[in-house]
Amino acid sequence: MRVGNSVLPLTSRPVMHIDKHQIAQHNQRLEASHGRRFAQLAEDLPNVEKIVQQLNDFQVAIPSWALGTGGTRFGRFSGGGEPRNLEEKIADIGILHALNRSSGSISLHIPWDIPEDYAAIRTLAAHYGLVFDAMNSNTFQDQSGQPLSYKFGSMQHVDRAVRQQAIDHNIDVIKQGMELGSKSLTVWLADGSSFPGQLNFRKAFQNTLECLREVYEALPDDWKMFVEYKAFEPNFYSTTVGDWGQSLLYASKLGEKAYTLVDLGHHLPNANIEQIVALLLMEGKLGGFHFNDSKYGDDDLTTGSIKPYQLFLIFNELVEGMDSRGMDHTKDLGWMIDASHNLKDPLEDLVQSVEAILVAYAQALLVDREALIEAQASNDVVQAQEVLQHAFRTDVRPLVAEARKRAGAALDPLALFRDLDVRGKLIKERGTKAVATGL
Amino acid sequence: MRVGNSVLPLTSRPVMHIDKHQIAQHNQRLEASHGRRFAQLAEDLPNVEKIVQQLNDFQVAIPSWALGTGGTRFGRFSGGGEPRNLEEKIADIGILHALNRSSGSISLHIPWDIPEDYAAIRTLAAHYGLVFDAMNSNTFQDQSGQPLSYKFGSMQHVDRAVRQQAIDHNIDVIKQGMELGSKSLTVWLADGSSFPGQLNFRKAFQNTLECLREVYEALPDDWKMFVEYKAFEPNFYSTTVGDWGQSLLYASKLGEKAYTLVDLGHHLPNANIEQIVALLLMEGKLGGFHFNDSKYGDDDLTTGSIKPYQLFLIFNELVEGMDSRGMDHTKDLGWMIDASHNLKDPLEDLVQSVEAILVAYAQALLVDREALIEAQASNDVVQAQEVLQHAFRTDVRPLVAEARKRAGAALDPLALFRDLDVRGKLIKERGTKAVATGL
Amino acid sequence: MRVGNSVLPLTSRPVMHIDKHQIAQHNQRLEASHGRRFAQLAEDLPNVEKIVQQLNDFQVAIPSWALGTGGTRFGRFSGGGEPRNLEEKIADIGILHALNRSSGSISLHIPWDIPEDYAAIRTLAAHYGLVFDAMNSNTFQDQSGQPLSYKFGSMQHVDRAVRQQAIDHNIDVIKQGMELGSKSLTVWLADGSSFPGQLNFRKAFQNTLECLREVYEALPDDWKMFVEYKAFEPNFYSTTVGDWGQSLLYASKLGEKAYTLVDLGHHLPNANIEQIVALLLMEGKLGGFHFNDSKYGDDDLTTGSIKPYQLFLIFNELVEGMDSRGMDHTKDLGWMIDASHNLKDPLEDLVQSVEAILVAYAQALLVDREALIEAQASNDVVQAQEVLQHAFRTDVRPLVAEARKRAGAALDPLALFRDLDVRGKLIKERGTKAVATGL
Amino acid sequence: MRVGNSVLPLTSRPVMHIDKHQIAQHNQRLEASHGRRFAQLAEDLPNVEKIVQQLNDFQVAIPSWALGTGGTRFGRFSGGGEPRNLEEKIADIGILHALNRSSGSISLHIPWDIPEDYAAIRTLAAHYGLVFDAMNSNTFQDQSGQPLSYKFGSMQHVDRAVRQQAIDHNIDVIKQGMELGSKSLTVWLADGSSFPGQLNFRKAFQNTLECLREVYEALPDDWKMFVEYKAFEPNFYSTTVGDWGQSLLYASKLGEKAYTLVDLGHHLPNANIEQIVALLLMEGKLGGFHFNDSKYGDDDLTTGSIKPYQLFLIFNELVEGMDSRGMDHTKDLGWMIDASHNLKDPLEDLVQSVEAILVAYAQALLVDREALIEAQASNDVVQAQEVLQHAFRTDVRPLVAEARKRAGAALDPLALFRDLDVRGKLIKERGTKAVATGL
Repeated sequence: MRVGNSVLPLTSRPVMHIDKHQIAQHNQRLEASHGRRFAQLAEDLPNVEKIVQQLNDFQVAIPSWALGTGGTRFGRFSGGGEPRNLEEKIADIGILHALNRSSGSISLHIPWDIPEDYAAIRTLAAHYGLVFDAMNSNTFQDQSGQPLSYKFGSMQHVDRAVRQQAIDHNIDVIKQGMELGSKSLTVWLADGSSFPGQLNFRKAFQNTLECLREVYEALPDDWKMFVEYKAFEPNFYSTTVGDWGQSLLYASKLGEKAYTLVDLGHHLPNANIEQIVALLLMEGKLGGFHFNDSKYGDDDLTTGSIKPYQLFLIFNELVEGMDSRGMDHTKDLGWMIDASHNLKDPLEDLVQSVEAILVAYAQALLVDREALIEAQASNDVVQAQEVLQHAFRTDVRPLVAEARKRAGAALDPLALFRDLDVRGKLIKERGTKAVATGL
Repeated sequence: MRVGNSVLPLTSRPVMHIDKHQIAQHNQRLEASHGRRFAQLAEDLPNVEKIVQQLNDFQVAIPSWALGTGGTRFGRFSGGGEPRNLEEKIADIGILHALNRSSGSISLHIPWDIPEDYAAIRTLAAHYGLVFDAMNSNTFQDQSGQPLSYKFGSMQHVDRAVRQQAIDHNIDVIKQGMELGSKSLTVWLADGSSFPGQLNFRKAFQNTLECLREVYEALPDDWKMFVEYKAFEPNFYSTTVGDWGQSLLYASKLGEKAYTLVDLGHHLPNANIEQIVALLLMEGKLGGFHFNDSKYGDDDLTTGSIKPYQLFLIFNELVEGMDSRGMDHTKDLGWMIDASHNLKDPLEDLVQSVEAILVAYAQALLVDREALIEAQASNDVVQAQEVLQHAFRTDVRPLVAEARKRAGAALDPLALFRDLDVRGKLIKERGTKAVATGL
Repeated sequence: MRVGNSVLPLTSRPVMHIDKHQIAQHNQRLEASHGRRFAQLAEDLPNVEKIVQQLNDFQVAIPSWALGTGGTRFGRFSGGGEPRNLEEKIADIGILHALNRSSGSISLHIPWDIPEDYAAIRTLAAHYGLVFDAMNSNTFQDQSGQPLSYKFGSMQHVDRAVRQQAIDHNIDVIKQGMELGSKSLTVWLADGSSFPGQLNFRKAFQNTLECLREVYEALPDDWKMFVEYKAFEPNFYSTTVGDWGQSLLYASKLGEKAYTLVDLGHHLPNANIEQIVALLLMEGKLGGFHFNDSKYGDDDLTTGSIKPYQLFLIFNELVEGMDSRGMDHTKDLGWMIDASHNLKDPLEDLVQSVEAILVAYAQALLVDREALIEAQASNDVVQAQEVLQHAFRTDVRPLVAEARKRAGAALDPLALFRDLDVRGKLIKERGTKAVATGL
Repeated sequence: MRVGNSVLPLTSRPVMHIDKHQIAQHNQRLEASHGRRFAQLAEDLPNVEKIVQQLNDFQVAIPSWALGTGGTRFGRFSGGGEPRNLEEKIADIGILHALNRSSGSISLHIPWDIPEDYAAIRTLAAHYGLVFDAMNSNTFQDQSGQPLSYKFGSMQHVDRAVRQQAIDHNIDVIKQGMELGSKSLTVWLADGSSFPGQLNFRKAFQNTLECLREVYEALPDDWKMFVEYKAFEPNFYSTTVGDWGQSLLYASKLGEKAYTLVDLGHHLPNANIEQIVALLLMEGKLGGFHFNDSKYGDDDLTTGSIKPYQLFLIFNELVEGMDSRGMDHTKDLGWMIDASHNLKDPLEDLVQSVEAILVAYAQALLVDREALIEAQASNDVVQAQEVLQHAFRTDVRPLVAEARKRAGAALDPLALFRDLDVRGKLIKERGTKAVATGL
């Protein structure tokens, strides 16, 4: 768990903030019933202290673009009080982190979040106990003043000059990340085609690989490159990094600093994502994770709101696979939320998402590994299901709440967010028309 | 809850049966920990007694074909000890019902289960506390000695003689059901086409409607007809009762005794089944339910093994919709499991399925309706999700176990099934080569 | 076929237009090879004259929002020369219609296309030989100055005032349509939910039905109301008019002027759209059609670019079903393109779409109905496929070109569009930064 | 093109066969109209002779299990006259090959087709001009007398003894293939799981890889191993060789004789198969192809009956990709049909499938490569589509027929099959109850 201790200059201090006393007061009110539930649950669990500690340690990065209202091509319905600049985005994540102490890092998107003063931004983040997670480049939109267009792709582009522009941009993003203390670059390419014949698939792959190689060359030794894949959208016929197989192919050809990044919403219908995760871990090539949930495509809904059992099964593979390689749950993979908050208050949505992630992680930690291995070894399919469902059906919320309590966060972050009227105060501070940069 | 009290003639008595003492002994062993967990849960629930009673009352019909090992077109791996005739199928459901007291009815499939002596079969069923649920006709296979083939459909068939054969068969099934005390007929038609051009869709619909009308005419006044729909398989281009819209069209044209039957596995990818359920209830046309689970198609897996949250959401609509119409949860809809037990012991699979159904039903009963209505009325999407997820995340297993205990069933049916070595005894009784009729 | 003959006031005349001489010159150049191909094809076809006439008569409406570059939530890459107002949109469709004489109507979208002077707009349209097809309302976006928000739906909304606003808007759209000579209203509702619990499905349906009833009341006697359905997007959990079954339920409850509208991209994966079309025609409830193509969701690609055989099969059902009811192919259904031109020049995209529609229609007209009926009557699946594939594999482009030639349009519209550098001239006229209203 | 010239011993001669005179007579009757159509088409094509030669050379292997009626888990409706043994299966393919001269090889399935006398079988095949294509092993079913069961997988199995049994079987299949002159082994593993928790994905992969390695060791130097993947069925949660990414991973780890095999029906909904093909060719790892068609899953319908444009796009990639590597279209990839003939006469179904394959191949050969490259190089998406659609919309059937004519096959194989009443004669020879081994 990370705690911020820097001193924030007076002028940067936002009106809205959550202090320790508010949290303590809130927790005190809920302590009796929480304490009882936690104690009851602890009776049935052998290793409750260890699990609470693991939950305490777990941190999910928040992308800077998740603090504003999202939209679809059909429209966007803004909710008011959105952060107007990077400083306010950091402040929002600061509020979130104060509430749950599980959101201790921020993932920036360039060019939406170019800092003017790196040192000041680092200080500001540190004040909230935040560090900088993966940097995200953008070659799927044209920025005003940009010489060449990405209309027909970026790294796949038939024109070398466009490809060079995309390479240069990514290298620039790395440089900015170095200033901020980031250690990884996420490359999501929207490159692909919407019509048969538009692309030569092979050349598109090779152009992309060549560009990624040049970016990879510029990567510091202690950095990772995440190659994100997506089945479709915004291109509707093919995508040049379209599935885990393609991403793994790129990552393998690039080298040991290159990894695959899995976004839960980027698959064809019915894909078995947990198997993909297990195989990528087996190959040592799983790098990071984008959490969200979906029913139809890249719906970018609140994590755990549609398929919570799938989320648990994924965490079950993550825990098993990481443990089998001796990996550190908190450091060796990049965890990030990547959702679009079209209808909900973005901060409330993030509170729900982080809670769902921690619930699934706690359930996965509860899985009786020995019993599962034994069931598998004897092809006892019924018992294997019992082991998993026992963990999933257990109400682990007291564990998650206890971990928060011990970290100095709120027992019920959503309730406190509402009790303190955080959004109301943000609207007062920023106005109802504030619109965050992003999608 | 139904309890059997008839006297079974000595010669019909199977070797394997579960008696009250075995259950009492089992329950006694688990009582301490169960009692504690139930009491702890009851502390947090306002209406625990009512919920336990509702769980106690809830009964799920077991299809006669679910007692044997299922298979795919690629093969079938029998497990041994399968029931060799209708009497043994009833005995198997008797075992199941003794274990959970929630499986108090049997759904027969004709011609797989034609009784030789109706009175004897009724007595046998009553001995186990079982009644006869919906009768199922079969016009998707050719039986030996059958004059005309269903290769190109039954009720949709271009040849009137084939259609008449299908009508006659269904009327015969009704008659058999009347002898047994059944009150409903489920018509699942595999009719459809595998190639463009094979059918005139309109004529296929009209032929089918005309046949269903003739069967409907033969339906006793206190019977219901369930028109089941399915998106695909065994036909792979079109199905003549292919979705809820088509089923509703048939049911509406047929009359008030005709209803739609929903099988969870019979939809296109990503269908919102809970919305379908809600709309059919709104129209007063939801008749019955076939439980199972699936990831890809009609996979016929254990209920709740893949998408337990979807199952809960469906029950949430069922409870809300039935209550809004003043319907009786236990009598006004037909509940049945319809799965294929390819890998698991069929009885263990059914134990897990019934448990998953009761868990989902209990969660749905826990939903704070007033809070949900209030959240909906104020477009508080976050709070609406909280209300549902609170119910879903609660560990309701103690409620389900308590309901079983009060009904004289086992606190942990699966554990008792294994402790008593039920399958081992069935194999001893029936042999390892016994193969049940069915798919 | 409709031909414009009004006189356009000098000031409204755009720089870019296509005149008869240009078309004649173009056709003369291609006549030799076209004539030969057409003659060769005619040798093998019994009723070529009738088919050419039917192709000649067929008209597809162009939506006003299809003339600009479309986009996704990730961005939009404008192409330049887009129409800046309704007059220029009409001019664009005029160009298209001059090229193919098959695009003789325009479908307006309110509030994107509110005319300032109805008479002038009617005159302008008539000048190009265009009439006004279905009017489209918009309750899926908030317009500036709109008192209440559609963020949580319009006709489904829990607040009666929002519902009234949606009703009033639709009635206003009808009134505008009456001024322009339109005869139908298309209601596409984005209403739905993105999260379980957000909506009460039944109440959402009933609110929507109640609103549609009020709009229906305001519908002139000779108008039709089209109730469009869509499986998902922009809502990602449920849609309140989500499939053909729901649309048919609304349309049936509303009355005889209400119909279902089918958009090819609005279905779940693998849906059999041709069967839906056949059943809706059977019920007398198919009202209109939105053409486009897609691989994943509502991709809104060029019609026929992904699944041309499906398009043919749909036309095969349309022709068969309309003929069986004695319907007029050109008047009794509303035909419209509804696509998003993200990568292609919108006018070129429309030329390709109209061509694909006419090709599919021509193939459907070629189907040997008697042979098909005979094959179906004898369950000769092989022969039924042969009949359909023979029509589909026939190269019908000479028929379509001949129909165009006889109507005074270009033998090769795309080639002429490029030869005349239409887009270049439009850019010169309107600038590279012109952005059309719409998505 | 291969022609058989061995002498078949009198006793082996089947009653039904097709001789040269019958074909000549048939062709003579159709020559006039065919000749005209071919000549007309040739006028528009620059390289018609080369294309006809390529079509002439193209051979598709027929699997031995495709000669009988297929079924689903719901039933099988046999059609009569099915081959009763390997000799009769070869005779059936002989008939097919006589009709189209494009089906000159047979793919055996062990243990369904174990020859008793290799030399005799080779002679018999040679008599019909047939050679032996890929051998297929079977570890997805239990054979009577087999010591260990594949119920829980074969090469993935937790029990080393089961894995050894699967290895031994595959090595045995190689040996049998060596006797027959085959040069490749297709390994399709049904291995996977139907329930979460059933498998440890990583161990299942590693067990499978280890087994494949042992089989690979036994592979002769001039053989290839094809690792087939499938998304689901008969397992419904995970498959251990589930997608092209997994197959490529196995093939890469195995070595240069190991390749991926693509079956068109083995993907998740909406997968872009043509891109997969292009990437596998790029990697030098595409080994073979199983043709069929489908709408929902592994429907195993007649090739080209559902998505003919997709088939063309796949061939477009195959031609482009093979040419770019200097590969021989006829020898360097394994082409096979793999379908299930549930409703159609198997031989008629195969005639239609081979025709559809040749049509798609011919269309792909027609693609103007230079124009396509130029369109791609200038991001002219409209023109790229025009190039592809021009090839696809061209009626290439005269080219395919001409190739057949030159090879001594029938201009219209289906018509001749029916004219000669082949099936009627086979039924007379074999009876109506003959049922072929296979699925």
